[in-house]
Formats: sequence, C-alpha cells, structure tokens
Amino acid sequence: MNLEETISRIPPLDREVMEAAEARQSHLTKPAGALGRLEELSILLAGITGSSRPRFSERTLVVAAASHGVTEEVVSAYPTSVTEQMVHNILGGGAAINVLANAAGARLVAVDVGVSPAPQPHPELRRVRLAPGTRNMLREPTMPREHAQQIVESGIMLAEELADYGTTLLGLGDMGIGNTTAAAAIVAAITGAPVEQATGRGTMIGDAVLRNKRAVISDALGRHRPDPEDALGVLGKVGGYEIGFLAGCCLGAAAHRIPVILDGLPVVSAAVLADRLAPAVRSFMIAGHRSAEPGQHVALRHLGLEPLLDLGMRLGEGSGAALAMPLVVAAARTLDEMATFGEAGVDEESDAGQG
Amino acid sequence: MNLEETISRIPPLDREVMEAAEARQSHLTKPAGALGRLEELSILLAGITGSSRPRFSERTLVVAAASHGVTEEVVSAYPTSVTEQMVHNILGGGAAINVLANAAGARLVAVDVGVSPAPQPHPELRRVRLAPGTRNMLREPTMPREHAQQIVESGIMLAEELADYGTTLLGLGDMGIGNTTAAAAIVAAITGAPVEQATGRGTMIGDAVLRNKRAVISDALGRHRPDPEDALGVLGKVGGYEIGFLAGCCLGAAAHRIPVILDGLPVVSAAVLADRLAPAVRSFMIAGHRSAEPGQHVALRHLGLEPLLDLGMRLGEGSGAALAMPLVVAAARTLDEMATFGEAGVDEESDAGQG
Repeated sequence: MNLEETISRIPPLDREVMEAAEARQSHLTKPAGALGRLEELSILLAGITGSSRPRFSERTLVVAAASHGVTEEVVSAYPTSVTEQMVHNILGGGAAINVLANAAGARLVAVDVGVSPAPQPHPELRRVRLAPGTRNMLREPTMPREHAQQIVESGIMLAEELADYGTTLLGLGDMGIGNTTAAAAIVAAITGAPVEQATGRGTMIGDAVLRNKRAVISDALGRHRPDPEDALGVLGKVGGYEIGFLAGCCLGAAAHRIPVILDGLPVVSAAVLADRLAPAVRSFMIAGHRSAEPGQHVALRHLGLEPLLDLGMRLGEGSGAALAMPLVVAAARTLDEMATFGEAGVDEESDAGQG
Repeated sequence: MNLEETISRIPPLDREVMEAAEARQSHLTKPAGALGRLEELSILLAGITGSSRPRFSERTLVVAAASHGVTEEVVSAYPTSVTEQMVHNILGGGAAINVLANAAGARLVAVDVGVSPAPQPHPELRRVRLAPGTRNMLREPTMPREHAQQIVESGIMLAEELADYGTTLLGLGDMGIGNTTAAAAIVAAITGAPVEQATGRGTMIGDAVLRNKRAVISDALGRHRPDPEDALGVLGKVGGYEIGFLAGCCLGAAAHRIPVILDGLPVVSAAVLADRLAPAVRSFMIAGHRSAEPGQHVALRHLGLEPLLDLGMRLGEGSGAALAMPLVVAAARTLDEMATFGEAGVDEESDAGQG
C-alpha cells in the first residue's frame, strides 16, 4: 500500500472489544485494578488488535540503520564509521539489541536504510538504500522530498510483510551515529519545543559538543524553516532515512492492527512524524521506556504516552522497546490466562471494599 | 542451618568480581552507561553471586500463604476464606502469579505456612504449618516467640533446598487476606514511621475500613510495644507466618549468594525483618517494583532500595517480583553476552565525548 492508502486504512481502536476485555479484567481473580497499568495496557491491546484476548506469540524487533551527513559538524562522541561497524556487530549477534531481543523472544530484523560505507551484503540484512545516508542539514536539506515519501513507504512495506508473515507485536529500534541530532530537530520542528529542550547528550557528548549540536540544529531549522504541519517536509529537510523508515513501520503496523513498542528519541521522533501524517496511528503506540534524552520526553508528552520503564537508558537500537516487550506480553497473558472468580471458586469482594 | 549460623554465613558482596564486571561493562559495544540501571544491576548481580558473568537459567518464585487472625477486625475487602481459595487457584494455575511466573520462566513453589481452613493436600503444595494462621494482634501476640524463630528457620530451609537444587534467582510472593495489616505494623514498628504513613488500602478498602485498619494497628502496637531492635519480637507480636517465612527465605538465599527479588508490602516487610536480623542481607535484595501501598515505599526507603518497575500494581502473590525478573535476567545477559569493542571491531569513543 502506498502512503495515502495506508493512512486511510488505519482503523480506530475497537471499543466493543475493549469493553469485553474490561469486563473480563473485572472478573479475574484479583482485586479490581490490582494489576495497575498492566490492566489498562491489556485493554488497549485488545482495542488495537480487535481481539478481547490478544496473544503475542510472534514478536519482531526492527532495527533500522542509516548514516547522517550532519556528523561532519561534530555532534556525536563516536565517528560516523561506527554505524556500519554496529550493523556488523548486530549481524554477528554481539550488540545489546541481540541480547535483549533474544531475551524478549523476538526475532530481530536489521535494515540498512542508507549506511555509509555500505555494509557487506548479509543474508540477515535487508537493504532499502535510497542514498548512502543523509546530507548535512546545516548546508542543505537532508534528502530530496521524493526520498522522504519513498522511505516512509518502504517502512510501510516492511510492516506489511511482517504482518503477512504473522508478526503480532512490533518493537522498533534505530542505529545511526548523529541520529539524535536529526531526531531532536524533528521534535523541535513539529512540537514547537525549543531546541534546548529537545536536544540532549546522545552518546554522552560533553558540554562543548552539546552547545555545537544545539547550534547546528537551530541553524538548520532557521535555514530550512520546515512547516510543522508537513511531516514529509520536516523529514526531508532535517530528518534521517532510518527515522522515515521507522515512521512507515508505525503506519504499516497500525494499518494491520499491530501494537508498536517505541524506544528512545530517534524512534519516538519517527512516531511523531507518523502521528503528524495520520493522527489515528497514535493509539497503536506503546512507549517502551523513558530514555535519558530530554527530547524523548518532549515527544512522548506530545504524543500523550506514558512509558512503561524508566531505567535511565540511552542506547537506542530498540533496547528499551525490547526490554518493555515482556511487560506487554505479560499484560496480555494475564488477561487471557488468569481464571475468573467464577471459574476458580473464589469469593468476590465483600462490602468492606465499599466501606 | 539454624538462624544464627545462617546469619553468620551471609557473605559481603564480592568487590573484586564487581570490579571485573564493571571493567567488562565499560568495554561492551555501547556508550559507557548507556544501559542505565541495567549496568549497575549487572554489577550488583556479579557481586551477589561472586561471578563476573552471572547466569540465571534456574529461576524460582516462592509464594507463601497464611491466614491472619486480625481479619476478625474488618481490615480487608475480602473474607479470610479467600486465602485458602486463592491457594487452590494458584495450584490450579489460574492466579496472576501463575501467568507471570510462567512468563518469567520461573518455577512456582507454593507454601502453606498456616492457611485456615487448611488447604487440601496437593503434590505441588508444601506444608510448613505451625498454626492455622496468626491470632488477632488486637487481643494478643500473633504467635508464640518460638514460632517466630521456627518459621524464619523454615524459610531458611526452603531457600537452602532451592539452592541445593540449583536455583540461581529467587522471587518472593505472599498470599494472605489481612497481611498488609501485619506488614504495615511491622514496618511501623521497625522503621518508626507513623502508622498513617505505613498503612494503605491493601485490596482497596474504603475510607471507613482504612480508618479501622489504622486504629487496629495503632492499638496493637500500643498494647504489645514491640522492641524495634528485636525482629523476632516484632514478628511474634504483630507479624504473620508467611512474613516470617519469607524473611527466612531472604536470609537463606543471601547465605547461598542468591539474589532475591522483592515484591509488595508483605514481602518488603519480611525483608525489613531479615535486614534487622542480619544487615548484610540487604545487599542481596532487588526491589522488583514500587507498589501502590505507601508502607512499601517507607520500607524500601528504609532499606535503601530503588524499585525497577512502577506500574501502580498492588496485587501481591509475587506479581511485581515476577514481572521484574526478566529485567534482572536481561541485565545479567547483556553483561555476559554482548561483544566488547575489541571483539566486534567497533571504534571506541572519540575525543568528542570529553569535549
């Protein structure tokens, strides 16, 4: 499906099924509400999937990697070559996301969305390269506008493939030295938050690099003046290929009723783009964690999402999404597998509860 | 081992191994500190286990159940008969803890530590009954002092059995209508916190029952005047059998270098007792979650523990411990399984990090 068609196919949450799930929750053998946010989450998952007892046996974590021309300006603690090296590390099984996806029982799908230098072909690496990374946002738009639309549609296509395969729960991750610069610029452009609020230390840059990173973003936004209503314009002027691709994954997953677990700033900036393209997509998103990047908090507030975890992580790769995945699965499993008071022969609440 | 011997055998954290783990963490393919609390946790796990790359393939969740005489005073939203019914539900696989332990890959060990009426014998239910539950703390001490020591030692024995079997990670849970009353009394007695601060709504009692619950605890503490330095005295005067048993599990696990994941108020009150008996045990504890019970926050502060999860849960049964278990396992797995920069051929941080 192309972008327009995908947007038109994103359904609303299934309210009828949510009511059925809520009714079931209230009869499970526990005090009402005692599972806290797991209960709300289980009801949301019902509404997303359209099933009052959703199951998530087939889980996938997509990591999209791309390079960023803005690294010419010294915005990261790592050289841009690390992007390609980390793709290699992921394919070799040695990255944090390998361990965490594995622990979550999720398949990992790595995508080269424009890494420079181009990674060696590998059976487990998908290629969706429109360019060897973005151009430097300080000098020129990061990508042609056609690329912005094409890369979003590529993300949609991957989500469709995964849906056809049977994926029922999707986590998203990013890899790209320089991409918190692009992500912060997107968040500032779309939410209107000041650049200072949207921009953090990424890979833990020091004060001088942080000042430079903020100046670069401010200058780029001043030069290109992206229209906050035009998500593809923002993506094409200051965004990154992996970010556009991940925005497409959000849209494609929502069109197929697949819950999407978000990660740190780059993924959440993709979610902000997707939300600007199709506000209905927001209901399909679950914030995996609160990262250490301030721009991520701005973006989550903008999306009205409250994260499940808050462990001071700032790694990317989908690490926060993978770590939250077992919580999402557990929420659904309590709804599906717990006995009701009637089934278990347990007495319900006495009057004291109302006392 | 008896109580005294167990206390004497609790080792300090292995600082040498922690340094080795910290050194390894700093060479893994991620920016230093990017996994946030998972990194600290992995280093703590190394210190607890004495292994610089700890592994937790054999996980156990103990749920200890007992009845409480104080339920005569209307302190819960549920009748006391629910304790026995919920034991039955757990044995039938229908409780939240069945689902969550299963999701965490943990074996569930249910223990009848004095449930009334006595549950039918069942191959999967252990019996450690010194009495059919406690006496009413408002009228008399909840158990004879010998019972207080015996029940702690029974918990130690279970932890030893599990250690001998090969358990490497232990989560603790409780079941007992009325036990947040006992737990709040313990926390108030030992930490010196006001009863109002230590006492919450348990199974979501209303205002009138909450007032009564607080009055009962205050009156019981006023009548028995437990010495805060004497943990067994506190346990015997206002505690519960499952709470004493779980305190023993903490001590026994620590003596065998097994990390213990805590749950809500009753389990944390057991941890407070264990800590009063043997301050060295504190280093072996991991707070699974922040529950909705205010007394749990008081007790966690007293123990200096910061919980991993905060999802508004207030169910007990070990549900928060089980839900946190995958995070603990994931922390250890990143330390053990991730590649170092050298192994992966990834460039380390450039000078920009210090810039």
